[in-house]
Amino acid sequence: MKAKVHVTLKPGVLDPQGRAVLHALEALGFGGVDGVRQGKFIELDLKESDPKKAEAEVEDMCKKLLANTVIEDYRVDISEG
Amino acid sequence: MKAKVHVTLKPGVLDPQGRAVLHALEALGFGGVDGVRQGKFIELDLKESDPKKAEAEVEDMCKKLLANTVIEDYRVDISEG
Repeated sequence: MKAKVHVTLKPGVLDPQGRAVLHALEALGFGGVDGVRQGKFIELDLKESDPKKAEAEVEDMCKKLLANTVIEDYRVDISEG
Repeated sequence: MKAKVHVTLKPGVLDPQGRAVLHALEALGFGGVDGVRQGKFIELDLKESDPKKAEAEVEDMCKKLLANTVIEDYRVDISEG
């Protein structure tokens, strides 16, 4: 199975990386941007072939390593292949 | 409009960050992972209200700043709100 994981900052948490991108866009002449938030996108190839078990395993990985759950949210999508 | 941008390394480009995550997962006891690729996920709030124009603008941002098109692919998804 394949897993796609989105890790994003929780609402309200300051995002200095997003602010830097916003300012760089403005400097390049893109004035029509009100806000930028930057997160992580992680793709995993898994040996597990059962979607339910794969999802539980990846949720566990998120809690233990991939996301800092104090300040970040995560979303797991499991697909065939 | 809102735009969601995924920036991922092109196939074949070495991903040291992904390898580091893979090794960390193995060290934590997650042996069922064959590969990890790490990319960026960027959310933008746009003033533009026309979806076609918004998409063209964000594609332009990707080419000029958000992605390094020599080694990275990008995908733009535009949504209401």
